[in-house]
Amino acid sequence: MFRTHTCGELRIDNNNQTVTLSGWVAKRRDFGALTFIDLRDRYGITQLSFNEEYNQQLLAESRKLGREFVIQVNGMVTERSSKNAKIPTGDIEIVVESLTILNSSLTPPFTIEEETDGGDELRMQYRYLDLRRDNVRANLMLRHAVAKHVRGYLDQKEFIEVETPVLIKSTPEGARDFVVPSRMNQGEFYALPQSPQTFKQLLMISGFDRYYQIVKCFRDEDLRADRQPEFTQIDCEMSFVEQEDILNLFEGMVQYLFKQVKGIDIGTLPRITYEEAMHNYGNDKPDIRFDMQFNYLTELVKGKGFPILDTAECVLAITANGCANYTRKQLDELTEWVKRPQIGAKGMVYVLCNADGTFKSSVDKFYSQEDLKQWAEKCHAQAGDLILLLSGTTKDAQKQMSELRLEMGSRMGLRKKDEFKALWVVDFPLLEFDDENNRWHAMHHPFTSPKPADIPLLDTNPGAIKANAYDMVINGVEVGGGSIRIFNKELQAKMFKTLGFTDEEARYQFGFLMNAFEYGAPPHGGIAFGFDRLCSLFGGADSIRDFIAFPKNNQGRDVMIDAPSVIDAKQLKELGINSQI
Amino acid sequence: MFRTHTCGELRIDNNNQTVTLSGWVAKRRDFGALTFIDLRDRYGITQLSFNEEYNQQLLAESRKLGREFVIQVNGMVTERSSKNAKIPTGDIEIVVESLTILNSSLTPPFTIEEETDGGDELRMQYRYLDLRRDNVRANLMLRHAVAKHVRGYLDQKEFIEVETPVLIKSTPEGARDFVVPSRMNQGEFYALPQSPQTFKQLLMISGFDRYYQIVKCFRDEDLRADRQPEFTQIDCEMSFVEQEDILNLFEGMVQYLFKQVKGIDIGTLPRITYEEAMHNYGNDKPDIRFDMQFNYLTELVKGKGFPILDTAECVLAITANGCANYTRKQLDELTEWVKRPQIGAKGMVYVLCNADGTFKSSVDKFYSQEDLKQWAEKCHAQAGDLILLLSGTTKDAQKQMSELRLEMGSRMGLRKKDEFKALWVVDFPLLEFDDENNRWHAMHHPFTSPKPADIPLLDTNPGAIKANAYDMVINGVEVGGGSIRIFNKELQAKMFKTLGFTDEEARYQFGFLMNAFEYGAPPHGGIAFGFDRLCSLFGGADSIRDFIAFPKNNQGRDVMIDAPSVIDAKQLKELGINSQI
Repeated sequence: MFRTHTCGELRIDNNNQTVTLSGWVAKRRDFGALTFIDLRDRYGITQLSFNEEYNQQLLAESRKLGREFVIQVNGMVTERSSKNAKIPTGDIEIVVESLTILNSSLTPPFTIEEETDGGDELRMQYRYLDLRRDNVRANLMLRHAVAKHVRGYLDQKEFIEVETPVLIKSTPEGARDFVVPSRMNQGEFYALPQSPQTFKQLLMISGFDRYYQIVKCFRDEDLRADRQPEFTQIDCEMSFVEQEDILNLFEGMVQYLFKQVKGIDIGTLPRITYEEAMHNYGNDKPDIRFDMQFNYLTELVKGKGFPILDTAECVLAITANGCANYTRKQLDELTEWVKRPQIGAKGMVYVLCNADGTFKSSVDKFYSQEDLKQWAEKCHAQAGDLILLLSGTTKDAQKQMSELRLEMGSRMGLRKKDEFKALWVVDFPLLEFDDENNRWHAMHHPFTSPKPADIPLLDTNPGAIKANAYDMVINGVEVGGGSIRIFNKELQAKMFKTLGFTDEEARYQFGFLMNAFEYGAPPHGGIAFGFDRLCSLFGGADSIRDFIAFPKNNQGRDVMIDAPSVIDAKQLKELGINSQI
Repeated sequence: MFRTHTCGELRIDNNNQTVTLSGWVAKRRDFGALTFIDLRDRYGITQLSFNEEYNQQLLAESRKLGREFVIQVNGMVTERSSKNAKIPTGDIEIVVESLTILNSSLTPPFTIEEETDGGDELRMQYRYLDLRRDNVRANLMLRHAVAKHVRGYLDQKEFIEVETPVLIKSTPEGARDFVVPSRMNQGEFYALPQSPQTFKQLLMISGFDRYYQIVKCFRDEDLRADRQPEFTQIDCEMSFVEQEDILNLFEGMVQYLFKQVKGIDIGTLPRITYEEAMHNYGNDKPDIRFDMQFNYLTELVKGKGFPILDTAECVLAITANGCANYTRKQLDELTEWVKRPQIGAKGMVYVLCNADGTFKSSVDKFYSQEDLKQWAEKCHAQAGDLILLLSGTTKDAQKQMSELRLEMGSRMGLRKKDEFKALWVVDFPLLEFDDENNRWHAMHHPFTSPKPADIPLLDTNPGAIKANAYDMVINGVEVGGGSIRIFNKELQAKMFKTLGFTDEEARYQFGFLMNAFEYGAPPHGGIAFGFDRLCSLFGGADSIRDFIAFPKNNQGRDVMIDAPSVIDAKQLKELGINSQI
């Protein structure tokens, strides 16, 4: 037997017991006649003590142990003279009676500690050592806990987990598919699923009623900072439901997760429409940990001779409470910030609401104190506050002001990692127009149901149609989204037509789904959550990468195993393909 | 709201309640002034009643409803005059007050009943309808239950579920990989994992201590009857364990699963060595629901002038209890059966142990009653039993007799689908010789640890080395297998060398694992269970196909979605590959 206990479980109650432990040498501290070793495993750290008086030879052996050696020790649990209140085993140490080196270790290329000296590239190359760090392992244990409680909740709600296939059919719509050449059907390819969307709809047609799956999905996209070619979804679908049923059930799930995993009561989720979200926050995934909603000053600022505001389609303002003490330097820097190409504003107007009730603005030349007082009233600004204005087309001004609002929220410390505010955004537009290709795109996907009252608009004004679609947003991050689906074959056909599919294209890509709709499809709808993102949010981190055991880098490479890689000519030949390289 | 109740939950206690139900029309029965409809959903069937006296128009409408129409009804729960004890809702029916057709249905191409008239091909093409059949859905619900209890057990044992990557590196060893061309790294390919073997070993090196995953794996093999290109494993690994620890823990898991899922106490699992299994059953996955072990008559039968038995390397016999009444016709048919090319025996000798204590054999010309009596004693045969003999090389005789034993077990009704006998087979050989390629192969995989005492044999007699490897066998099916792993770099290098890898090949394919072994690898071992197979076993079925929601056929095709399929030239070009077709 390699151990009687783990390195995390011995307490003062175990005093005088003889125990066997195994683990890694995390630290060694030598003092004259004494050596202490911190022995580490997944469960914790236990101090080992080697004493010259007790056993000289063992002391000498202990001093040959390097960092990350794997050892097994036998010894007596003994109360420490100087206790360590920081760790649960801190009251005791093991006076070692025998020592076995199970494996040696080279010196790791970076320190195995929360704050490591290893850079990203090095850590990824030695991911198996990086995963030894307490915080990285804690992230993956958090992930396990979230998955477990998701399953617990959905099981209790009578959902059935069904595995859908990974080797499926390529569909040109949407993002690029990863494909898999078929050896047995040469010249043909499988595709890896971007989501199990059609399969979960088929399961509803099959009468499964409530389906879920925590499932890998794949997208061959050029990777931005925080995207992975393979990612995990919590994928759900329900039959005989309306939007309200789905919102209630999954609001319950998120409340349950926060309670179970974080011990937090996040309360009832506000519901706002897409229009409200865009109007008040310029963003369909608003961060509502802080207020700072948009104020529309377009009319109020007109006619005072300042051409930029006079001619703007839209003038927006936000109020930064307590920021009237911003210096000229800070305000100039903020102006530069909004003018960066990533934001793209032409300039920024500010109004400082002084403590004495006067105002100081960057447009004092055009606007009187009385004008500015009206602005302040419209913006609910008090003495001590700062008002920031941006102008332009409505679309641009909303987008830029959304960025500025988030930036101010961050600067003012209003976006705390340990505070969580969730909401639903509902009533999304069904379609968005793609100027480049001069065609309509489904905002969610082509199976999303329009609101029944809006169906006639498909012929007259597609852009005005609202969908039975919803997103769950937490702390400004879209963690989940879904919709009520079209379950009527004629409506689905009309939808494909509006999206510019020919009958043939629709039949080729979705023929099996269209066929299935002929045989009694129930009303149904669903939702999918980005599981990696949800976990990183629970963990208070910005990046999903440290919540994935073996992530890929921005070039889609796993630098540890060195994949992708070349394969031999024989393998290619069997598959019936040539590499053009 | 589409329903107040499901079709499975109303009872006599709900009498006189007004309810709303939604579901599928499973059956319609018209009688003069009355129509009954069985309304079906996942949860059950509820009878709807339409009555001319109560509402003539509704009765007329109900008669337009075809099979598999999706309807919603509102009505009053009413006690039935003639109750149906076969279904839980059989005491009541719904007297329908309003009816909405939610969706119509074409007539399904086969009946949606347990015993369907649809053939395999048709059922697969319309899998979404096939999945409506109670028994198929029950299989998938069983699968869900097994997964849930696997997780429950392993969670409780402090295992952490970690997702390992799907896009990994191709390794020529073993079965063929499915590969995925990389668009961002042209000329290079990912491979889909045949198992997460190396990743789980890396997780042990990372100190995860106890890992599991219910995970999709992929093998591009020519498909035999019951293989799928994508299949699911319960994959597990533990650190600081010996074989005994793993056997105990997973014996516990299987006991737990049988208890939770089937309500069966399967008791302690016998452990037999590979040698014993081969000796007694000619099979490393013996079906021990019945005894009928091999008897070795090689010496006993010699010297009586029957050349075939005189010269055979091995003469085996089994005793079929109570089969002395087999007719000549039956015995001839059995002889033909063992001579089929799939079995390959040259012939079969039988001895009938008559009720009067005499013997009648197919070799009476050579063997006296006294000889046959000795055979019977050696075979523990009693009056009324049948003894069957096969001969040949030891290897062939064992293999053929194993088939005959299983066949006799089936014919004698000794292999009951609802009886479960599990065991461990241990002490497998480490290596097996591949005559064709004149090299050693790892019997499990190249990371399997030899028994420490046998390590010196690597240089002298590799074939004699026993491994710390084990299989779990239930009812003659290998449901799981695993091993203690090599965790020492030098031993692993030596193992690769024995298997004929050059240093370069080993480094190219497993370099990252070899590197990881440099940094403090703990002793570890694991096991993987075939999840599809385990579920079909629990379900008492021979085929795994009906325990997979959307299986592929023997050509690796999904006939429902028609995958694999051709992809456009643009997509191929982006990937930097040509199809040779």
